[in-house]
Amino acid sequence: MSTGNHTPHKKRQKKRIFRSRVKALGQPPGSLIHIGEQKVEQTGITAFGYDEGQAVAVEVKNVEECLGLKERFKVLWINVDGLHDTAVIGMLGELFGIDSLTQEDILDTGQRPKVEDFERYLFLSLRMLDFNRELNEITQEQLSIVLGPGYVITFQEKPGDMFEPVRQRIRSAASKLRKHDADFLAYALVDAVVDRYFSILEEIENRIDTLDSEMMADFSQEAFNALYAMKRELIIFRKTVWPLREIIGSITREDFDVVGEGVDPYFRDIYDHIVQVIDTIEVFREIVNGMHETYLAGVNNRMNEIMKFLTMIATVFMPLSFIAGIYGMNFKYMPELSFHWGYFTVLGVMVLIAIGFMVYYRSRKWF
Amino acid sequence: MSTGNHTPHKKRQKKRIFRSRVKALGQPPGSLIHIGEQKVEQTGITAFGYDEGQAVAVEVKNVEECLGLKERFKVLWINVDGLHDTAVIGMLGELFGIDSLTQEDILDTGQRPKVEDFERYLFLSLRMLDFNRELNEITQEQLSIVLGPGYVITFQEKPGDMFEPVRQRIRSAASKLRKHDADFLAYALVDAVVDRYFSILEEIENRIDTLDSEMMADFSQEAFNALYAMKRELIIFRKTVWPLREIIGSITREDFDVVGEGVDPYFRDIYDHIVQVIDTIEVFREIVNGMHETYLAGVNNRMNEIMKFLTMIATVFMPLSFIAGIYGMNFKYMPELSFHWGYFTVLGVMVLIAIGFMVYYRSRKWF
Amino acid sequence: MSTGNHTPHKKRQKKRIFRSRVKALGQPPGSLIHIGEQKVEQTGITAFGYDEGQAVAVEVKNVEECLGLKERFKVLWINVDGLHDTAVIGMLGELFGIDSLTQEDILDTGQRPKVEDFERYLFLSLRMLDFNRELNEITQEQLSIVLGPGYVITFQEKPGDMFEPVRQRIRSAASKLRKHDADFLAYALVDAVVDRYFSILEEIENRIDTLDSEMMADFSQEAFNALYAMKRELIIFRKTVWPLREIIGSITREDFDVVGEGVDPYFRDIYDHIVQVIDTIEVFREIVNGMHETYLAGVNNRMNEIMKFLTMIATVFMPLSFIAGIYGMNFKYMPELSFHWGYFTVLGVMVLIAIGFMVYYRSRKWF
Amino acid sequence: MSTGNHTPHKKRQKKRIFRSRVKALGQPPGSLIHIGEQKVEQTGITAFGYDEGQAVAVEVKNVEECLGLKERFKVLWINVDGLHDTAVIGMLGELFGIDSLTQEDILDTGQRPKVEDFERYLFLSLRMLDFNRELNEITQEQLSIVLGPGYVITFQEKPGDMFEPVRQRIRSAASKLRKHDADFLAYALVDAVVDRYFSILEEIENRIDTLDSEMMADFSQEAFNALYAMKRELIIFRKTVWPLREIIGSITREDFDVVGEGVDPYFRDIYDHIVQVIDTIEVFREIVNGMHETYLAGVNNRMNEIMKFLTMIATVFMPLSFIAGIYGMNFKYMPELSFHWGYFTVLGVMVLIAIGFMVYYRSRKWF
Amino acid sequence: MSTGNHTPHKKRQKKRIFRSRVKALGQPPGSLIHIGEQKVEQTGITAFGYDEGQAVAVEVKNVEECLGLKERFKVLWINVDGLHDTAVIGMLGELFGIDSLTQEDILDTGQRPKVEDFERYLFLSLRMLDFNRELNEITQEQLSIVLGPGYVITFQEKPGDMFEPVRQRIRSAASKLRKHDADFLAYALVDAVVDRYFSILEEIENRIDTLDSEMMADFSQEAFNALYAMKRELIIFRKTVWPLREIIGSITREDFDVVGEGVDPYFRDIYDHIVQVIDTIEVFREIVNGMHETYLAGVNNRMNEIMKFLTMIATVFMPLSFIAGIYGMNFKYMPELSFHWGYFTVLGVMVLIAIGFMVYYRSRKWF
Repeated sequence: MSTGNHTPHKKRQKKRIFRSRVKALGQPPGSLIHIGEQKVEQTGITAFGYDEGQAVAVEVKNVEECLGLKERFKVLWINVDGLHDTAVIGMLGELFGIDSLTQEDILDTGQRPKVEDFERYLFLSLRMLDFNRELNEITQEQLSIVLGPGYVITFQEKPGDMFEPVRQRIRSAASKLRKHDADFLAYALVDAVVDRYFSILEEIENRIDTLDSEMMADFSQEAFNALYAMKRELIIFRKTVWPLREIIGSITREDFDVVGEGVDPYFRDIYDHIVQVIDTIEVFREIVNGMHETYLAGVNNRMNEIMKFLTMIATVFMPLSFIAGIYGMNFKYMPELSFHWGYFTVLGVMVLIAIGFMVYYRSRKWF
Repeated sequence: MSTGNHTPHKKRQKKRIFRSRVKALGQPPGSLIHIGEQKVEQTGITAFGYDEGQAVAVEVKNVEECLGLKERFKVLWINVDGLHDTAVIGMLGELFGIDSLTQEDILDTGQRPKVEDFERYLFLSLRMLDFNRELNEITQEQLSIVLGPGYVITFQEKPGDMFEPVRQRIRSAASKLRKHDADFLAYALVDAVVDRYFSILEEIENRIDTLDSEMMADFSQEAFNALYAMKRELIIFRKTVWPLREIIGSITREDFDVVGEGVDPYFRDIYDHIVQVIDTIEVFREIVNGMHETYLAGVNNRMNEIMKFLTMIATVFMPLSFIAGIYGMNFKYMPELSFHWGYFTVLGVMVLIAIGFMVYYRSRKWF
Repeated sequence: MSTGNHTPHKKRQKKRIFRSRVKALGQPPGSLIHIGEQKVEQTGITAFGYDEGQAVAVEVKNVEECLGLKERFKVLWINVDGLHDTAVIGMLGELFGIDSLTQEDILDTGQRPKVEDFERYLFLSLRMLDFNRELNEITQEQLSIVLGPGYVITFQEKPGDMFEPVRQRIRSAASKLRKHDADFLAYALVDAVVDRYFSILEEIENRIDTLDSEMMADFSQEAFNALYAMKRELIIFRKTVWPLREIIGSITREDFDVVGEGVDPYFRDIYDHIVQVIDTIEVFREIVNGMHETYLAGVNNRMNEIMKFLTMIATVFMPLSFIAGIYGMNFKYMPELSFHWGYFTVLGVMVLIAIGFMVYYRSRKWF
Repeated sequence: MSTGNHTPHKKRQKKRIFRSRVKALGQPPGSLIHIGEQKVEQTGITAFGYDEGQAVAVEVKNVEECLGLKERFKVLWINVDGLHDTAVIGMLGELFGIDSLTQEDILDTGQRPKVEDFERYLFLSLRMLDFNRELNEITQEQLSIVLGPGYVITFQEKPGDMFEPVRQRIRSAASKLRKHDADFLAYALVDAVVDRYFSILEEIENRIDTLDSEMMADFSQEAFNALYAMKRELIIFRKTVWPLREIIGSITREDFDVVGEGVDPYFRDIYDHIVQVIDTIEVFREIVNGMHETYLAGVNNRMNEIMKFLTMIATVFMPLSFIAGIYGMNFKYMPELSFHWGYFTVLGVMVLIAIGFMVYYRSRKWF
Repeated sequence: MSTGNHTPHKKRQKKRIFRSRVKALGQPPGSLIHIGEQKVEQTGITAFGYDEGQAVAVEVKNVEECLGLKERFKVLWINVDGLHDTAVIGMLGELFGIDSLTQEDILDTGQRPKVEDFERYLFLSLRMLDFNRELNEITQEQLSIVLGPGYVITFQEKPGDMFEPVRQRIRSAASKLRKHDADFLAYALVDAVVDRYFSILEEIENRIDTLDSEMMADFSQEAFNALYAMKRELIIFRKTVWPLREIIGSITREDFDVVGEGVDPYFRDIYDHIVQVIDTIEVFREIVNGMHETYLAGVNNRMNEIMKFLTMIATVFMPLSFIAGIYGMNFKYMPELSFHWGYFTVLGVMVLIAIGFMVYYRSRKWF
């Protein structure tokens, strides 16, 4: 979950896996409370109305305007950015007959992805992911989609560029989108979300490659920590994508009133993509685990190198120093000391001993 | 399982995973025996009667009072704190037609969570969890819920504040609770229990964060032990929550007589929460495992640092000491000793050797 | 598998996971061969006949006596201790119409637990476990139960006290047992077996606690071996209990002729207990795995401590000895040697170097 | 897979998991090619014809003889040893109407165990395992069984003694085999194969016991390698037995034309045995894993011991040598040197230091 | 994925698990875009027309030619090498009525293997694997198969020799292929792809054997890295083959219009092969994991050897040097120094000490 740059306290910049529900605990079910941080100053509403002939984008000031648009166009897409203004969600809920349980789910940004069929509309709760290159972490945002007959309402926590391609296609008269119903729009939106997962996979693979070469260069604790952070991201990524498989699968299998049969193959396409994302995450996890093991083996080998070096130096010089120590003794009667070539003989013996050790080490392939 | 501060023996403060059934073994099935510790002095019974118009809370002295209340109100909630007075449970059982097998299950506080349908009532056995910040551990208590037509009876091991929000909502005339039947009350109670799981998840995440920074500061055995204790808590937490998934799932799927269809979406909501709790526990477990690996890598790296330091010092000074040893020998004929600059030449050679080693270490990035 | 104290060879006291079938291999199916050790001198048969009014216990000398008892009482329980006398099993088989395949299964004490429906009777093969405190290991014995209309025949490998509570309840006129049919007796017997599993869990938890404190005191190889033995016991315990889940589950689900519907809730109770046993074994295994990791971390930390100590001593004294070595050289011209305070200056420098190292170690928190 | 002693090249004695199919690749399906090594000089065919009254064993020279035998006896068993003579298999196939796909499967000795129903016959492909005590490894051989009405044809890669007990039972007029149909013979053959699995389990347990004591004696690399080889054997054993569970399970569940209902309980017996084999393999794998961990812990502990010893010696003698070094310096003015008892005082101080270290090590339980 | 030798940038030679979809993101579904690298200069189209009587191979210049061939022969196989010329795929799509979603799937070379039924044709997306011996890695290529009534169209990324055996069989008048329909051709093609998997398994086993001996010779980091690369290959291999199981399984189970029943047993044969490939990959993975553990144990043992050697040398020479140091002290009064045999006595004591240590090490089996 992104915390943005404007969070005042150092402490809060710590990324959390689990979104605090403290505000909501102890409240009776059915109260509209926004669970999560306020990520934008003001709630912004944009409406897109279109059919095959025309397409209109309106900055909505007053929620009631939407009703007029709904009558004028075959498909109406209302996008809400920012969830802290619960009144707006309440009003939209009233206008479009959205159940109070759904409204609560929209506001509780710690939801597990899910799909719920309310017959007059379908409720989808997804997670939009993005990769923050500066922090090297995945940021999360909740996307709620209400798909009714002739309209789609999306709720995001803050404005973003994820749906820009969809908007462009709405504007283009030739696009398939303009010829299809609201269910196809819902498909296009979910597709845009899942496409972003692929970008994240690419970012992660790049990151893994970088880490791999960094790690091999020096087996530092920093490299390990980065590896571990990567593992953590993958765990959360998987946790987020996993439920989608079931959700999109149920859309293709079950007969929801608001999803026409013609759109089913498209959702099946998304299903295939999600399976591929999950597969790839699993492969990445196994690779990161392999890197972890390589790291440990590398650290071990380095230790081995160090110990070999210490042992080589120590085992050569200890006997030599001992010999020197012997002839440093002050005994009155030490006949060797008076031999004329005694000193050089001892030096020669020392060289021979050193060579002996070297030969031994070489034979054991220590260097 | 909480042992409280009043347990007299040091030995008993050891937290146990498995609750002794010794008292019950060898007894014929169907005998009312309280398995577990006595956690309160006296069994306390409170009754709440309410319907849309009115709400009454009574401290019950005599179990028979309950029958009168049951007739006066649409919904009656009887809460029993303390299980050692088996007579009370027996009397309540007789008044409300509770099966003797259910009565035994209420008294055996080591139960695995379960749901059992007795047609005239539904029996739910859950575990209320709480996080003891002083001991940094999760405490457990068994909650038994008997949901019959127009009444809910709850059995706790000791009084607590977990249901305070439910009580407040009963008191408030505007609350949904007052408009619904006994099944909604049961839902609200289970919801309160599951909400507490979320608080525990938050506590655990805080604890994980603390541990993470403590561990990184010094890779001490204490940090590891705390990590391991955390792991243990997560194992037990998961073991406790896991069966709930199946239990609440069966309530939403199956047609129990005492659970109206209108309450199903609410139980489905709890189901979603439980799945989220389980998911989060799994993520926590993987993160704690990752911390464990980081710890081991950190310890390994520290060892590496120490060995590098030892090797650097030892390999520099051993050859130097050896040279000093050579010129400490007492041979009669050692020509160098009489060279005027011999001493300073040797010192110079020593400095060169030391520099040589430094350059070598630097080239291998040892410091 | 218990080997008892009377096994003559040291070698045979080795506990085996897998019971030799060599005697049986190569034999045509359908031959009565006892696979396993002979655990008692003589096969002992006891019969209990009872109905609501009366109860009789008979030491059976002649197998034919049983038929008379069967006619006199509503329920007849024949218990056979010792399996090596295949003639006894053959005769009982003939009297009660037990299939030859069942007879073989009774004699093959290496059976996996199973249930088999032969319509006129139900065959249950279980494993009775016990905890041998001296050897700190779980001992196994096979229990075969043949449940027919109005009779239960049990086959044990040796006499034991596991069914003592059941016998007491038969003797007591007020017990439920006396009011029910043979299927309830079968339930009571299985319940006694499963209750013993709980005692074993308790023993294991005690053992884990002891091991935990022993291990923390010193990370010795002995502690590790004990841990590993514990792991092995848990593997075998789980392997033994696991199939029971399926077996008892099938009794509650399927309609066996000899098991009345009234007994189903009681078997469901056993099912719950078995699930709890399995859950607890899993938790124990995870805890033992955690202890294993703690052990390894502890050993690692100890090594770290040792290396730190060595490094501290070695790195302080090596430079100091080097300095002493320098002034031990015998060069003619070493001006410092003649300085009057040279010796004390060098001592002072040595103290400063030692202090410098201490400060460095302190700054890196080495002590 | 056994390679035998007669393989000429050292290289080929390497045991392979995967049997080369190179000869078969690129060939159209349906060509008769023998994949695998030629394990016998000549293909040998033996035929057993029997019914309740008589039994005949014939060494078949000409494949056509079989037809005559088939007419004379209720059950005909043709056993083929050696697969390289594809003509023999082709002729048998023609005589008994065996599909060309089946013939290929018989010849491809790298088959995964499977069952295939061709209505007029049932095709079973199994793996016969044996334990080679010299190489301490499991050898494999493929067994193909064609079970048709009134006949069983078995194809082995080389002659063996595995079916000796079956042959004996055919010869014995009193045996059950003589009274049953060909499906019972098929059962007896599969039973003989599975019985051998039990012998292998016993061999493995013996081997595990030996390894366990060897390993504990010295934690050598050899012991580890033997452990790892054992692990490898278990992996392959499991891979080989695992599919049998499904295969025999399907025989008991499905209605194959050539398997009568009366034989079902016998196949269910085999099924139970296979489940037990798989269970035991799993237990062995967990035990071997535990041994692996014990090995690592043992190696670690040894390292600890070594380091403790080194540290004790080094830390005692380094300060002592330093002191000796000090008084070996040649400063003109070193007052202690002229003290009469100086030498003995220093010796005393050294002894005190050594004792101090000893006390310290003892307090930390280093020895 | 193979990158070939002609890739200009060093960077791109890095093998990627995940194929970039950046070109495709943001594009409306249904646009024909080639995702993947351009692996050939020019798209090449070859057509094979055959029936029992005749067979013709044509180098197609103009896509329209195909229609004529389709009418002339019972079976037409069009093979397209190279996907970057989207116009060709578009035209073929138009001629044979291939859905635009299928066309996109053909061009997106990062597809997960899948089968899709479009009633008038069946679409299969597979991955052709090959083992690059120089890089010691598995290369991937996507194969798309469109199977319609009387025709098969295959799309490869670049020309290859994988289908050479199929081409030969088409040319041979006697081959089964010539007698069957297009579905049999599809089978033969998939069979050729799966056969190649077996070659890869063989290559991998050879590689594992080589690695095994290399690793045992010296436990170098290089050996470990090769092991880790092998692991990575196996992960990707498994990921690629795994979905095929489901795909081929569904062809044998479901009733696709374009797959006749007569071909089902052949596809079942492929299914068996795929299961065997997956099994073998799993076994290889376990073996590689075992090698990893052996590697770690080997490194550990080497470290042990080194430390033992260091300890032996250090602990012998430290006390000896200390003794030499003592008699190197310059105390005025050191009576031993003037003993005539003092020097030799000390040498003798030193030898005794050295022998003592040797005996001690020998008793602990250090050498």
